[in-house]
Amino acid sequence: AAFPGGFPGSQQDPLYGYFSAVAGQDGHVSAEELQACLTQANFSGGYKPFNLETCRLMIGMLDRDMSGSMGFNEFKELWTVINAWKQHFMAMDRDRSGTVDPQEMNQALSSMGYRLSPQAMNCIIKRYSCQGKITFDDYVACCVRLRSLTELFRQRDQAQQGVATFQYDDFIGCTMSI
Amino acid sequence: AAFPGGFPGSQQDPLYGYFSAVAGQDGHVSAEELQACLTQANFSGGYKPFNLETCRLMIGMLDRDMSGSMGFNEFKELWTVINAWKQHFMAMDRDRSGTVDPQEMNQALSSMGYRLSPQAMNCIIKRYSCQGKITFDDYVACCVRLRSLTELFRQRDQAQQGVATFQYDDFIGCTMSI
Repeated sequence: AAFPGGFPGSQQDPLYGYFSAVAGQDGHVSAEELQACLTQANFSGGYKPFNLETCRLMIGMLDRDMSGSMGFNEFKELWTVINAWKQHFMAMDRDRSGTVDPQEMNQALSSMGYRLSPQAMNCIIKRYSCQGKITFDDYVACCVRLRSLTELFRQRDQAQQGVATFQYDDFIGCTMSI
Repeated sequence: AAFPGGFPGSQQDPLYGYFSAVAGQDGHVSAEELQACLTQANFSGGYKPFNLETCRLMIGMLDRDMSGSMGFNEFKELWTVINAWKQHFMAMDRDRSGTVDPQEMNQALSSMGYRLSPQAMNCIIKRYSCQGKITFDDYVACCVRLRSLTELFRQRDQAQQGVATFQYDDFIGCTMSI
């Protein structure tokens, strides 16, 4: 056979093991499967495992066909993105307390290129903090939603002027799916 | 004293007991306190207790001063709203399985007055269902977010034509806080 033992290209990829173990027969990963996979792979390291809500957000971020699940290419893309966030978070969390401060979170979002007013930044940080601290799980949930919402906005801001007009149905369909 | 034993009007309210027990010295309820309170009051009945994320959404829905917590009036308002949703959910969940079907969810949202396209409705239901079923916790999370996002949209749709224009910063500040 031209491609013994698997799909072309997928065989050598070490991530494919994780993916195929959880994706099962349908070849797609649901939020529950993603949670199990990230926990098994000890992705969070010393941090608390991701909750199901965060896993749903991750799938929503890359689920372009709106199937509610992920194929291997989307899975690889997700892995790369959340690894980068993890490195960033660990660099901030120098004392390995598992949390970062609002001020550090603010700097992290700014360094990712988000230009937000202090008011908007405060809303975000308040929403994702617990007793004044941000956990890794909340940090990732925040990054996923900020990325997805910015992307949705950009698609509707065709003149790239920072202004977009939404129909109610489109606004709800977009924002409720994230 | 004119009002022995407490604040005017608050004394007779049976809810005040729950509120004051969790609100503590600062007189405000945080997401963690709300979760403890709803669990203690056995609010979910036979259903799974609310997760912290849903409690955060509930507080965000009524937190007009953006403090991240709730006073007694907001608490009472929340209690009324989620009680109505619970009655609705229980009426749908006739076999007490703890979940409802997408079709029932669709009818529930329509009966609340939301006019959404089948596409938007599908996005919402996919986002809030798990293996084709919607739990009480997810149902409440969905109702809270739909209500909050609709309200935010309405405030910006001054002509009430179903169209609203957002600046990027406002869009992110609004949608990320919900």
